[in-house]
Amino acid sequence: MKNKFVKAVAVIALGSAFMTSCKPKSSGDAVSGDAAQKAYVAPGKYDEFYNFVSGGFSGQLSVYGLPSGRLFRVIPVFSVDPEKGWGYSEETKPMLNTSQGFVPWDDLHHTEMSQTNGEVDGRWVFGNANNTPRIARIDLKTFKTAEIIELPNSGGNHSSPFITENTEYVVAGTRFSVPADYSNGDVAINTYKENFKGHISFVKVGKEGEMDLAFQIVTPGVNFDLSHAGKGKSHGWFFFSCYNTEQANTLLEVNASQKDKDFIMAVNWKKAEEYIKAGKGKKQSVKYAHNKWDEKTHTAKSEIKTEVLVLDSAELKDICYMIPCPKSPHGCDVDPSGEYIVGSGKLAALIPVFSFDKLQSAIAKKQFEGDYGGIPVVKYEAALHGEVKKPGLGPLHTEFDGKGNAYTTFFVSSEVVKWDIKSLKVLDRVPTYYSVGHLCIPGGDSKKPFGKYLIAYNKITKDRYLPTGPELAQSAQIYDISGDKMKMILDFPTIGEPHYAQAAPADLIRNNGQLKFYKIGENNHPYVTKGEKESKVVREGNKVHVYMTSIRSHFAPDNIEGIKLGDEVYFHVTNLEQDWDVPHGFAIKGADNGELLIMPGETTTLKWVPKKVGMYPMYCTDFCSALHQEMSGYVRVSPAGSNVPITYSVGTNLPATK
Amino acid sequence: MKNKFVKAVAVIALGSAFMTSCKPKSSGDAVSGDAAQKAYVAPGKYDEFYNFVSGGFSGQLSVYGLPSGRLFRVIPVFSVDPEKGWGYSEETKPMLNTSQGFVPWDDLHHTEMSQTNGEVDGRWVFGNANNTPRIARIDLKTFKTAEIIELPNSGGNHSSPFITENTEYVVAGTRFSVPADYSNGDVAINTYKENFKGHISFVKVGKEGEMDLAFQIVTPGVNFDLSHAGKGKSHGWFFFSCYNTEQANTLLEVNASQKDKDFIMAVNWKKAEEYIKAGKGKKQSVKYAHNKWDEKTHTAKSEIKTEVLVLDSAELKDICYMIPCPKSPHGCDVDPSGEYIVGSGKLAALIPVFSFDKLQSAIAKKQFEGDYGGIPVVKYEAALHGEVKKPGLGPLHTEFDGKGNAYTTFFVSSEVVKWDIKSLKVLDRVPTYYSVGHLCIPGGDSKKPFGKYLIAYNKITKDRYLPTGPELAQSAQIYDISGDKMKMILDFPTIGEPHYAQAAPADLIRNNGQLKFYKIGENNHPYVTKGEKESKVVREGNKVHVYMTSIRSHFAPDNIEGIKLGDEVYFHVTNLEQDWDVPHGFAIKGADNGELLIMPGETTTLKWVPKKVGMYPMYCTDFCSALHQEMSGYVRVSPAGSNVPITYSVGTNLPATK
Repeated sequence: MKNKFVKAVAVIALGSAFMTSCKPKSSGDAVSGDAAQKAYVAPGKYDEFYNFVSGGFSGQLSVYGLPSGRLFRVIPVFSVDPEKGWGYSEETKPMLNTSQGFVPWDDLHHTEMSQTNGEVDGRWVFGNANNTPRIARIDLKTFKTAEIIELPNSGGNHSSPFITENTEYVVAGTRFSVPADYSNGDVAINTYKENFKGHISFVKVGKEGEMDLAFQIVTPGVNFDLSHAGKGKSHGWFFFSCYNTEQANTLLEVNASQKDKDFIMAVNWKKAEEYIKAGKGKKQSVKYAHNKWDEKTHTAKSEIKTEVLVLDSAELKDICYMIPCPKSPHGCDVDPSGEYIVGSGKLAALIPVFSFDKLQSAIAKKQFEGDYGGIPVVKYEAALHGEVKKPGLGPLHTEFDGKGNAYTTFFVSSEVVKWDIKSLKVLDRVPTYYSVGHLCIPGGDSKKPFGKYLIAYNKITKDRYLPTGPELAQSAQIYDISGDKMKMILDFPTIGEPHYAQAAPADLIRNNGQLKFYKIGENNHPYVTKGEKESKVVREGNKVHVYMTSIRSHFAPDNIEGIKLGDEVYFHVTNLEQDWDVPHGFAIKGADNGELLIMPGETTTLKWVPKKVGMYPMYCTDFCSALHQEMSGYVRVSPAGSNVPITYSVGTNLPATK
Repeated sequence: MKNKFVKAVAVIALGSAFMTSCKPKSSGDAVSGDAAQKAYVAPGKYDEFYNFVSGGFSGQLSVYGLPSGRLFRVIPVFSVDPEKGWGYSEETKPMLNTSQGFVPWDDLHHTEMSQTNGEVDGRWVFGNANNTPRIARIDLKTFKTAEIIELPNSGGNHSSPFITENTEYVVAGTRFSVPADYSNGDVAINTYKENFKGHISFVKVGKEGEMDLAFQIVTPGVNFDLSHAGKGKSHGWFFFSCYNTEQANTLLEVNASQKDKDFIMAVNWKKAEEYIKAGKGKKQSVKYAHNKWDEKTHTAKSEIKTEVLVLDSAELKDICYMIPCPKSPHGCDVDPSGEYIVGSGKLAALIPVFSFDKLQSAIAKKQFEGDYGGIPVVKYEAALHGEVKKPGLGPLHTEFDGKGNAYTTFFVSSEVVKWDIKSLKVLDRVPTYYSVGHLCIPGGDSKKPFGKYLIAYNKITKDRYLPTGPELAQSAQIYDISGDKMKMILDFPTIGEPHYAQAAPADLIRNNGQLKFYKIGENNHPYVTKGEKESKVVREGNKVHVYMTSIRSHFAPDNIEGIKLGDEVYFHVTNLEQDWDVPHGFAIKGADNGELLIMPGETTTLKWVPKKVGMYPMYCTDFCSALHQEMSGYVRVSPAGSNVPITYSVGTNLPATK
């Protein structure tokens, strides 16, 4: 430990150590019948809001209802899910491809809903992969991951996937600076200052949501943490918090906590666009994967791209500006008007609020205090609207209610604090159990927040629920913020580790063309079987393609013989049902693979390489009807070189042998 | 379709097709404040019961609270979980080993808690794998899967993991009969009647929970569906429902629905034990895996066993008896007294209730109506206590409240029906939304049910919640059964596909020696690092072992150089924290693997084979402190043949080079 300050920091950092003995406390409001009525959604009634919650280290995205806190669905995004065949079915494997091959896990940190005119529009949710830097787009017509794009030159994509007010761009900033992919990566770690670079990525979003890596901006090596776009008057700008401006490369808890101020980096992306148009982007050779789901063929394709345009922030002096921000800023949030930019320095004892107008004026007047690796540093006071004094300990994130109020989470003092954006006065504070990280107010980072509820996503659970051994679920809390004072109404455990979340009114998502099932007539899967009389088994060398159908309550074919050791068997299963919520599952005994869950009208493929001669039952895994238990069959596997011919049948509907 | 009856069956089987247009209905009780108060658990208050719910096609086990319906934890059992490193860490990979190698997915159908004197004792929960036949034991001290045993000669382990009243045995019956592993498996499927056999397995459970495959009983080829042990007076017997006594092998929905009665097979396992002692078991060569977790070394071992003792039900005439049961029986449930055995024929219009006393008398008097493949068939009337007339359509499962009442679920008529066990009179019925499968009453299959709540695990969800595209969560409902009439109090969505579930009072589990963290002093992992000064990096040929520690808020070492392409790197990460709920995560960029979640005091290993020269950030994935974002480091990967030596460091605490 280098000095007293650092020791103090370490004490703050431990924080939770002092909470071990705390017992669950009831909020006075919460135990009343009033809170029960507010959080309870009676059978047959609907929740008011969808809540799209990042799964953190699960790599997936969770959909909850508000105010009930009920988990409606876990959408597989960046991690394999053997339950749904995600990353196991032939169709979905390409979705998890990267420039370094198939990656079965990631860490989905933040969610961001698409916007039109700065308002949540209910079309897509984006999620970022923190480990292998990527951005995913989830389509809210199907609640499926539709696209994943990888980001080169990056290490840990954390300040992502925040968007501009018409979803023109979704951004990504490297959390860990690394030697650029287009440079020599085999350098000593202690050459950080010269060889490690930051890259922030601007990914263009098309009308159908399709993503394209438009350009990157290279910066000095720092850690980009979070970001938010400008809106309204500040549309055209993006703001990124950065820590480790000390450029330390070891024991960051000490060495990256030295400076009293780090930065928020303001990026004029409209200007950057101009430079790209003017040919100022340098073409750099890199490799990144771009994976797209095709709803027509029910398959995914992965493409490896090889080039990116990079703008140099030190060379082009008017695209990036550093705003000093105390201390190790984490959250970087912009109020609904676009005027106020809130930097939450997790080691700071105050919250600075910057003014977009003052920033513009400071830039125009060149009120700089030097540069940082070639990027002009705006004078702190010149860009400052003001500071929220003594708000709490360890500020992390801020959201807005659209009524002029900001709500900031405090990890160390374990509370949410409501304050007035203009006057900077603290209006209310409520405890969280324990050590809140992100928070979410429906539409709370848009131009038109929907308000009503605030959800705190807490980092420490301890004794909030019945214990489950050493490992506990994460914990969230819902507050009613419709009145002057915040009122806790519900504790609910969450899966994975929720970081950022977004929420939108139920009707916005429900009335947006949501799909209930796939039309079998429009299924263009290369191995679709549109009726059970067309089902068949076709041998092509050692590959055997089973064109299979499923409908309550049988597979066609349901008996297959003539498979031999050494064969690769592809079960292409088409679910012929044409109604909502009639999936069928498919599994075969001893699968060295996942199962399939096939939605109505869909075709999905399981590859199976049998390892032993014998009789293999196959069956529907999703209880589909009163005769679900009868929905089964057998596959006979004979020795390699056996002369058992391919035969197959389903009851009397097909010839026993073909 | 063969006849009118079969067509009728098909209509019943489709069932849910007619529900498409139904709209959510509010139960009169449910919308009242009364229901809200009953289901609501205020912040800081605890649920009354733990609910251990099978994950079905997820392969995992979920822990919910009752009456709140909140999900406390998903325990990985039979499927990989990249989030927790289950099946990805070196320590856990052996847990998913089978006789055919590593299997990443399964279908966990039923849960059963251990019992002492027929009462739930809170020590373990067992779960069955339906696809690759296995039984798992989850230890309720740690909420971790402690042991998995595979079952030879089986195809689809469905009628499992039900136990005897002192947890002497946990059983498994093959759902799909198959040629025995010790016979020639390469036979034509249409030789089912001669070559396909059923095997039921008795797995002995030791004092510490350790499982051992004691013996199997071979039967004619049928489908064993569910089972329950006798208790009290019927202790020493086990009852298995069987369908497809037609021995059909294709289009079972028609061909296995021909007979008006199938069977419940009564097994005298005490007699079977005597035969085993007398040497009547035939030693058969088979292969099955037996995987055990060792809490001392925090590692798992997988052993392949090669022999099983098999008793022949046709040869030993007094161990198995068939009781005729209308029609395609599914659930097979024994009341708390052990006198009444309920067979739920899913295609029957009544529920037969058999009497254990009458069965014993019928056996003594040889009131048989012939045999089935050598097994005596008891006369229906001779074993029958009586029939519940017109109870509903599609009965599936029955549980008990300990007050003389039985509760049966009906899939087709979508309801739960309460009836009097002795008088067989229907007392109450409530709708379910929609098409209920299993149900659970706390302790509801033991000698001492705890009653109070009944949970219906429904098979169809449709419009119960805000929609999430074509794929919907499963749905459950909680009823208050403390009064004469059942009252629905909550709808809650569930993950995976819950089949059977068990529940027990919170205090029984909490006060059973539950662990909060592992003592670092007792950690005997072969690669443990008990203090950060002992951390090191050791090269052994192309294997590099990183002895790493994690403590808020850094890893030691946090910089590693000298890794080369072609190396296999093993990160053995020990979490030095000694407090509850302070896990650390570990991940390295571009991992071709999962992450690690390391509980306090634990050591866990991630294998990593880098594919490209470059700089790889590693970081803590579980937000652990105010300086969590600083808990990171770098690994430099150099080309094969490079002369960069192994060096490592963490700040000033360790020499930069060793």
